[in-house]
Amino acid sequence: MSYLDRIAECHRWEPDDYRPFIIDDMAVGRVPRDLATRLADFPNVFQVSGRAVSLVPDLNSFDERSAAVADVLGRMRAAGEIPRWRDEAYPILRRWGEAPLLTMERAAVPLFGVRAYGVHLNGFVRDAEDLRLWVARRAKDKATAPGKLDHLAAGGQPHGIGVKANLIKEGQEEAGMDPDLAARAISVGLVTYRCVREEGLRDDVLFCFDLELPANFTPRNTDGEVESFELWPFPRVLETIRDSDDFKFNVSLVILDFAIRHGFLQPDDPDYEEIVAGLHLPPEPV
Amino acid sequence: MSYLDRIAECHRWEPDDYRPFIIDDMAVGRVPRDLATRLADFPNVFQVSGRAVSLVPDLNSFDERSAAVADVLGRMRAAGEIPRWRDEAYPILRRWGEAPLLTMERAAVPLFGVRAYGVHLNGFVRDAEDLRLWVARRAKDKATAPGKLDHLAAGGQPHGIGVKANLIKEGQEEAGMDPDLAARAISVGLVTYRCVREEGLRDDVLFCFDLELPANFTPRNTDGEVESFELWPFPRVLETIRDSDDFKFNVSLVILDFAIRHGFLQPDDPDYEEIVAGLHLPPEPV
Repeated sequence: MSYLDRIAECHRWEPDDYRPFIIDDMAVGRVPRDLATRLADFPNVFQVSGRAVSLVPDLNSFDERSAAVADVLGRMRAAGEIPRWRDEAYPILRRWGEAPLLTMERAAVPLFGVRAYGVHLNGFVRDAEDLRLWVARRAKDKATAPGKLDHLAAGGQPHGIGVKANLIKEGQEEAGMDPDLAARAISVGLVTYRCVREEGLRDDVLFCFDLELPANFTPRNTDGEVESFELWPFPRVLETIRDSDDFKFNVSLVILDFAIRHGFLQPDDPDYEEIVAGLHLPPEPV
Repeated sequence: MSYLDRIAECHRWEPDDYRPFIIDDMAVGRVPRDLATRLADFPNVFQVSGRAVSLVPDLNSFDERSAAVADVLGRMRAAGEIPRWRDEAYPILRRWGEAPLLTMERAAVPLFGVRAYGVHLNGFVRDAEDLRLWVARRAKDKATAPGKLDHLAAGGQPHGIGVKANLIKEGQEEAGMDPDLAARAISVGLVTYRCVREEGLRDDVLFCFDLELPANFTPRNTDGEVESFELWPFPRVLETIRDSDDFKFNVSLVILDFAIRHGFLQPDDPDYEEIVAGLHLPPEPV
């Protein structure tokens, strides 16, 4: 096994399995056949053809679109068709930085193959000799990736909160971090991927942050999502990613980005160019 | 003007203007129409069709390929068809990390639209308050980008030297750096781009390095390629990139990558996702 295997896992999907999900003439997601068929039951909200699924053009404001889609999703939820309902509104964007076209319940986002955003925190301790990364073990009862290894703090990016503010919130909930400490985290880029998971088609952008922590910091989970925390020498983290799938699939990407940025992987490595390329999707629109 | 304008300049090319350059059934470059026509004059080395330019399959070793191509390029040079001859052998690779298929004179690489590699060094000084970047002004008599602003040290990646060793050599030649000092540089990733320049189609991968320098370090150019060095507050560097094309086109990309990695650009910036995407070409093969 290799780092490239971890990356390949984050890029498995079949374009032919989907029809574009179109809002206002712009493709913002990918809907599989079964869902397209089901959405045809709601012709006041969705126009379904053999080529595409579109939001009806009459729905032309943020509020109208959000309400109409929420109504359909609520009915599907009642029919047991949307597992793992989160009660969290995600923004659906034409382009990062623009006003959202609508919000959509988080659990439905991968069903529609819509792009989602998240934050991941590399929390590490450095001394003269080496660098150690805080590793969390996810609770065994989590809905996704139970028992997998994770970052000190990470989470989805809901509607209505800034990226850095969201990171600080996640640091508090997941690792009991003081907001002042989490605010010292530095934004260091992003990784992107598109792949089929149990929950649907994940089309994600993860904003990455680095935070050098004092040696006396001890994380403390406050929301029951983490079973335990350990401080691992970074080479052990990398070996575990290379040789196993113990880390949650997308955490591996963020950690490989960390390894690249901090010189733990070197340009003379034959896989170097392919690893960096694999952390970034092509810049085309969806 | 904006950062995205700088990035767009590094991605201007027209796929239809080229035919694939094929070695051993693998596309490794892009040849424009005029060159394809000219290469048809050398049927012992190149097979030219309306669809592709191929190296003749009989040339099936590194030495044979290199010698045959060098012979053709030498004739073209004698006919004045290859300006700015460098006498530097670049490796032509199927994939980074594999043994080169042949070497090719550096000046011919963009004529064949073949991927080239290089190293760029972000040399900076940090104190409690801010970060300053060493900026070089290129000599006015340089063949490419005379008078433009540049990195402390940067250069192409020739055949037969490791990436880090090359960086140390460039640091010595371009900035008079002690090899021990340059060896402290940390590899931090790469940027990629493909664009038409005066010299042809540049399809480049630049390995990026960061080096935090002591406040008492003063660069000293030893090869006549640099007119002067200045230490600029990083915000001034970024503003100059945003508002002008004073920096050499590809240096802007490496500095934007630096700005992303060090938190000078933030995820809440509406252009953030597009800037990061613009630093990396799609991971497909050539």
